[in-house]
Amino acid sequence: MRHFAIGIFVLCLLSSISWGQESSDFHPAETNVWGAEYPRVDSAGRVHIRVKAPDATKVKLNFWSGPKVDMEKQSDGFWTVTTTPLVPGLHYYTLIIDGAEVSDTSSRAFFGGGKYASAVEVPEPGSAYYSIQDVPHGQVREVWYNSKVTGTWRHALVYLPPNYDAQTKMRYPVLYLQHGAGEDETGWIRQGRANFILDNLIAAGKCKPMIIVMAYGYARRAGQTPPDLTGKPFGSPEMLKAMQDMASAFEDDVTQALIPYIDSTLRTLSDRDHRAMAGLSMGGMQTFQITLNHLDLFSYIGGFSGAGGMLVLGDRKLDPKTDYNGVFADPAAFAKKVHLLWLGVGTVEPERMRAGLQRLHASLDEAKIQHVFYESPGTDHEWQTWRRDLKDFAPRLF
Amino acid sequence: MRHFAIGIFVLCLLSSISWGQESSDFHPAETNVWGAEYPRVDSAGRVHIRVKAPDATKVKLNFWSGPKVDMEKQSDGFWTVTTTPLVPGLHYYTLIIDGAEVSDTSSRAFFGGGKYASAVEVPEPGSAYYSIQDVPHGQVREVWYNSKVTGTWRHALVYLPPNYDAQTKMRYPVLYLQHGAGEDETGWIRQGRANFILDNLIAAGKCKPMIIVMAYGYARRAGQTPPDLTGKPFGSPEMLKAMQDMASAFEDDVTQALIPYIDSTLRTLSDRDHRAMAGLSMGGMQTFQITLNHLDLFSYIGGFSGAGGMLVLGDRKLDPKTDYNGVFADPAAFAKKVHLLWLGVGTVEPERMRAGLQRLHASLDEAKIQHVFYESPGTDHEWQTWRRDLKDFAPRLF
Repeated sequence: MRHFAIGIFVLCLLSSISWGQESSDFHPAETNVWGAEYPRVDSAGRVHIRVKAPDATKVKLNFWSGPKVDMEKQSDGFWTVTTTPLVPGLHYYTLIIDGAEVSDTSSRAFFGGGKYASAVEVPEPGSAYYSIQDVPHGQVREVWYNSKVTGTWRHALVYLPPNYDAQTKMRYPVLYLQHGAGEDETGWIRQGRANFILDNLIAAGKCKPMIIVMAYGYARRAGQTPPDLTGKPFGSPEMLKAMQDMASAFEDDVTQALIPYIDSTLRTLSDRDHRAMAGLSMGGMQTFQITLNHLDLFSYIGGFSGAGGMLVLGDRKLDPKTDYNGVFADPAAFAKKVHLLWLGVGTVEPERMRAGLQRLHASLDEAKIQHVFYESPGTDHEWQTWRRDLKDFAPRLF
Repeated sequence: MRHFAIGIFVLCLLSSISWGQESSDFHPAETNVWGAEYPRVDSAGRVHIRVKAPDATKVKLNFWSGPKVDMEKQSDGFWTVTTTPLVPGLHYYTLIIDGAEVSDTSSRAFFGGGKYASAVEVPEPGSAYYSIQDVPHGQVREVWYNSKVTGTWRHALVYLPPNYDAQTKMRYPVLYLQHGAGEDETGWIRQGRANFILDNLIAAGKCKPMIIVMAYGYARRAGQTPPDLTGKPFGSPEMLKAMQDMASAFEDDVTQALIPYIDSTLRTLSDRDHRAMAGLSMGGMQTFQITLNHLDLFSYIGGFSGAGGMLVLGDRKLDPKTDYNGVFADPAAFAKKVHLLWLGVGTVEPERMRAGLQRLHASLDEAKIQHVFYESPGTDHEWQTWRRDLKDFAPRLF
């Protein structure tokens, strides 16, 4: 056992031995665990994946944003493949080894798709806004709060801006920032790098120092038994009811448990003028529901590749007179109340996603509701879109 | 894509549907990702693992503390196995699917063995000391500090005791607590649950409120080229040299970069009487090296299943006159200087590990050096041993 431990210790020493049997432009991805030489990425964005599976008969690479690709068996028991160039950003993937969908142990683990998935970071040339820079750094805190709504202890991450501890008299505005479906409260830090984005924006004087709260976006009411959805088809009334129950429990958790906890334990500015909410995909839908039901609490709203959502709008246009309790009925009143309504979507997201956001954008224009509509060039329903969203959104706050 | 996202959202709703085709005593392990019905654990500590690999020809379960076990293919494409009863605690494991060693995507991911491994928690009946309880909770912070020693930004986790923020005049003692080889700075929180152990001890009045700093235990000096160990056998002079270089770089990082950063950004008591260090396995060896070389900085020392280590003692006895610069030569002077020297090992750890700790214990007795020697009943070179170590060690501090 001690030899095992020492062996691992040595692994780390070996980690940077030159590999060099291929184009020198390929480098280990920054998303790798220490010492892992694969995945490798080149300057064109091609990704070289390698996995040991000596007795397998079929191994596939499964980038979630593209088709599955067959890997090729080498004589040394490793399977390899090099992709075509990928757009910059963080790409989730898994490996399918003889039918078993698994993660690549050479990659760090990112919670997505309801599991710890692999991901590879393809650098964006010239983009340093989401990297760690030589600027003052905020801290990320793990906190636990007791929710009477769910009857459980709940875990959240909180970003505190640089010097929060030293500026003991300062109070800060708060952005509540939600992950997508299948992800969790760690997504905006691990995948999104929200902390580095904010550090860099704050250091450049481009955005106000603020607190960011990242909650776990799933909730079930205390005492509520889980629904039995066995045999109920997708979109069935039973399923929609279950989704509404969860959305409503999460809404109450945020407004009745999380916000009071944050405002009572951190030096926040706790009025509505200093509270924002945004989220990606499912988190955007939650943001719309929660903020528009609670305009007494929020005055800045962001929907990143997700906003109205199937629970409210489905595939139809917004009706400003009736949807969301009619908050969009009076544009002047809305503009006075809501300091920012922000929508974003990537230009190569799936058509149905783009269409939904564009339809909402057009509906808001028609209803003369002031808002920002941002399109991220060349990016899919992936984290690069949402990093850019945050970079555009945060400077407009407070 | 939206359908995919919604599908995941629904997964969570389904998560607690009764399964019920087996002994009712089996329950999903608390280390599972949400919604995962497997691994399952029964009250005897047996673990039932299940993985989908429809086209595989051989699947093995690899608990790191025991032999590999063949899994059995079921007609539905799943492979299953039920273990014999395991001792309580957190057990790392991987799956070997047609020769590919992979993690189980039903398990949360724990960094160990140089990768994100799977683990299953076998509950210890009657032991709540490492569970989240209805007591005030501290926070865990992620911090980044710039190390001139390594020339890099380094990441550490910091536990702050309950009410740290509210007690703005209070200063706290600090325990530096290190992970083992193959693990990283997240180990003591994710696997060890050090935060809950401290929350519970503090709430019970059994230990002083303290700060715990958990550093990343690998380091390479700025500008140092990685050693080329190709073809160098285990234990070769080149390898020992490389290990010494890393140990020395980490020692300087802790004493010259990390401690000054912590003392300048947190409300610490920064004298030696209020600074402790402990670590497990490799972290114990690092603790001995760093504390005994810097008794101006530390006055409490803990070695959890690791202490002298091969770099200093190898398999020989301690020579109190010469080892560690002779700090053990004068028992009275040592006792005056060091408030606590603590060693621990599990009773079923590998014989070589046990022998090393027992030999050190006997050497210290012979040299009349006051110390605590703790044996964790029935536990291996695993986290249950180190949780118990912390529970015994922390109340003796400060």
